[in-house]
Amino acid sequence: MSDAVARLREALGERVRTDEATRATHRADSWVLAELHAFQGHPAPLPLAVVEPRDTADVARTLRLCRELDLPVVPYGGGSGVCGAIEPGAGAVVLSTRRLEGLVRLDPFDLTASFRAGTLGIDAERRVREAGLTIGHWPQSVELSTVGGWVATRASGQLSTGYGNIEDLLLALEAVLPDGRVLRTRETPRAAAGPDLRALLLGSEGTLGVVTEVTFSLRPLPEASRGQAFHFAGLGEGLEALRRVLRAGWRPPVARLYDPRESRRGFRELCPRGRALLLLLHEGPTAAVELERGAVSDLCRAAGGEDADPRSVDVWLERRNHVPAWRSFLEQGTIVDTIEVAATWSRIGRVYEDVVRSLAEVPGLLSASAHASHSYRSGTNLYFSFAVRPEDPGGLAAAYAECWRRTLAATLAAGGGIAHHHGIGRVRRAWLADELGEGGLAALRAVKRALDPGGLLNPGNLLPDEG
Amino acid sequence: MSDAVARLREALGERVRTDEATRATHRADSWVLAELHAFQGHPAPLPLAVVEPRDTADVARTLRLCRELDLPVVPYGGGSGVCGAIEPGAGAVVLSTRRLEGLVRLDPFDLTASFRAGTLGIDAERRVREAGLTIGHWPQSVELSTVGGWVATRASGQLSTGYGNIEDLLLALEAVLPDGRVLRTRETPRAAAGPDLRALLLGSEGTLGVVTEVTFSLRPLPEASRGQAFHFAGLGEGLEALRRVLRAGWRPPVARLYDPRESRRGFRELCPRGRALLLLLHEGPTAAVELERGAVSDLCRAAGGEDADPRSVDVWLERRNHVPAWRSFLEQGTIVDTIEVAATWSRIGRVYEDVVRSLAEVPGLLSASAHASHSYRSGTNLYFSFAVRPEDPGGLAAAYAECWRRTLAATLAAGGGIAHHHGIGRVRRAWLADELGEGGLAALRAVKRALDPGGLLNPGNLLPDEG
Repeated sequence: MSDAVARLREALGERVRTDEATRATHRADSWVLAELHAFQGHPAPLPLAVVEPRDTADVARTLRLCRELDLPVVPYGGGSGVCGAIEPGAGAVVLSTRRLEGLVRLDPFDLTASFRAGTLGIDAERRVREAGLTIGHWPQSVELSTVGGWVATRASGQLSTGYGNIEDLLLALEAVLPDGRVLRTRETPRAAAGPDLRALLLGSEGTLGVVTEVTFSLRPLPEASRGQAFHFAGLGEGLEALRRVLRAGWRPPVARLYDPRESRRGFRELCPRGRALLLLLHEGPTAAVELERGAVSDLCRAAGGEDADPRSVDVWLERRNHVPAWRSFLEQGTIVDTIEVAATWSRIGRVYEDVVRSLAEVPGLLSASAHASHSYRSGTNLYFSFAVRPEDPGGLAAAYAECWRRTLAATLAAGGGIAHHHGIGRVRRAWLADELGEGGLAALRAVKRALDPGGLLNPGNLLPDEG
Repeated sequence: MSDAVARLREALGERVRTDEATRATHRADSWVLAELHAFQGHPAPLPLAVVEPRDTADVARTLRLCRELDLPVVPYGGGSGVCGAIEPGAGAVVLSTRRLEGLVRLDPFDLTASFRAGTLGIDAERRVREAGLTIGHWPQSVELSTVGGWVATRASGQLSTGYGNIEDLLLALEAVLPDGRVLRTRETPRAAAGPDLRALLLGSEGTLGVVTEVTFSLRPLPEASRGQAFHFAGLGEGLEALRRVLRAGWRPPVARLYDPRESRRGFRELCPRGRALLLLLHEGPTAAVELERGAVSDLCRAAGGEDADPRSVDVWLERRNHVPAWRSFLEQGTIVDTIEVAATWSRIGRVYEDVVRSLAEVPGLLSASAHASHSYRSGTNLYFSFAVRPEDPGGLAAAYAECWRRTLAATLAAGGGIAHHHGIGRVRRAWLADELGEGGLAALRAVKRALDPGGLLNPGNLLPDEG
């Protein structure tokens, strides 16, 4: 046992775990490249130890001690991130939030609920549903990800077009800063009291602190919920319909537009070949749902949409959190991944065309497709999926990198942003300077140095190496 | 001419103004305490010079030079702030954005508009209206304040309950950081690419950089706009109605609830003595407006509301930006001010009762009243107004400080937040530690030191003195 582990154990007792099984399950998040390396016999190294704090004071103690010992610390929630934000390395301590679990406070009058950060999303949602309420945040990872992870990654849910993203649902948070100080933002509906400090943690991906408690502003469960679906000649026509819907002020919680490839793949029996498919879910008071449904239907038809089988919405609702296992693709010599980007309406069509065209040039590309799943007044996201099978399985990593490179380069060239809701992690950090600009990256580095001068919180993640 | 001014002039020519008239109009913002000091014959000192950059490069040049010369710099927009954020002092340079004026880009397809930071709010709104669009941000200062000031102060507008606050309307910004670097955030509808850097500037009150360009996500002008009004027995009953309206998911752009004193003062001929008055404005597609109007009406009646004269909405719309001149009160030996705070629904009633009760104990208090004007699912704000006439006019400043102290102390004791949308400035900075907590204040100080190590941007504002 190393001296460092002995010191940790002295302070935190059996909350410090060093058994191989625990360390093995914390050596990486759900990044397909980590999976590939493991598949090829080179898994990420085991971290030094996994600390499982039981309360905020434990988290503070861990961070202070790691600072004293000059040990890297990597906060770990559900481990469901897909961008390589977690790859601690052999010398690092993983700080798992799994024992920071459960409801702290539910206030149905104020529509607020506070959960400890390690609470699984689905458990938090189930708990507030018992009171007839909903968080309204449905990332595909809802059964795997934690509420603290939602904050740390700036997550989006499948109902975001109506209910907003995590920053819109978050009322307050508690976090431990790298020096062990506790930041607790005030539980007020809104403040103009200096810069909003919640923003330091939202999207920090474990580099600026450890989220320990999350307070949501909830909604009552909707009185009514109704779906509808439309076909469009292509993705572009569907995007134009979506734009008009958002522009008119309608905010259906779900508005998902699949390109012809994905429409075919996901809804073969319900969607004619070669057409794009738009799925909509309207929620709220019954009369408001009917009004929105009619108005959106009129807008879609006027934009060239044709009524599609509304059962496609049910098909989606059933399958929406199904993710194919990456391993099975790797066993076939294929690597697959998803890349979400965003752009304003006038740019998003070009992002789509250019990315798909550029990916088609990658040797061994099997498919490249996209859907839009989070829309705003001024634009939308695109969620690309690709699969590539290089001639030589030894070229999987290179083919994967090439697909990412082409997707982000084409997105940036078309004026888009490189990350809508999965975050930066390791897979995108080389492009962070392009995304933020030189001034933005300098500001972020300054903030990082100010809060974490030793660079001990999740080093190697989010920020590109200097120089 | 001082050496420093000579150096500034060398670099920036006639953009550096040192005439007394210009310096005199930039020595303070619209804080009533500054007005009182001037009235008593002790106006704030004239700043060293007023620099009026013509472009972003000028702003960067000014900040770099001031850093080199170790000169404090105070960014100045419309000067309409009411919290004392601007009081440069004799040794400081004022950086006025008045020449950074006008539209940069309007994109009706994307619903985006970029303005240079010194553009007056009303001019920006008028410009987008020519294209049938609206920013939807209506602070009472809209004819005086600038779009850059809106960002720097984290402003709210009168239609915020439906359209959101400045952080919800802001798509992107450009700012110059204290070291002269330019931060330009990407024009995407949403990103998960590290912490949102817009948040560093929103609410920074001139302490972390100078906003130079603001891009809004616009809305089309609404098809319909319709008001209605209700009486309630008291403010508490009206708050309960408001809570039910927001909880049900309705978002009327305007929802203003006046306590009996303010109802009487503002709507004497339309509101029975002793009743609270709720004004509502519904906007959007005609059918949606009618639906919301009916549903909200039902909720208000069920909560004990009685129909009030809808002309009260028109009265408010006409007079809404009228602010009485502070000077005329001072001439009568009276000082008046407003203090906006916020709290969750379960706490806001106690905030109201305790603040009003505590203010009543101040010797010479003439009135204390409040209205709620910005509501959310989980709570609302209160906008207190007070007037106090101490026996001896020499006691005006002390009486004023006592009113502030009591209002913020009672708000904090009831679990509220000390600033909803006016900001911190000098008037609230002694309470910033209470608002943010020790950890929050430490984090903000660390960010400030990181970006502005010399503490040259707007010193004495926002952050309390150390130690």
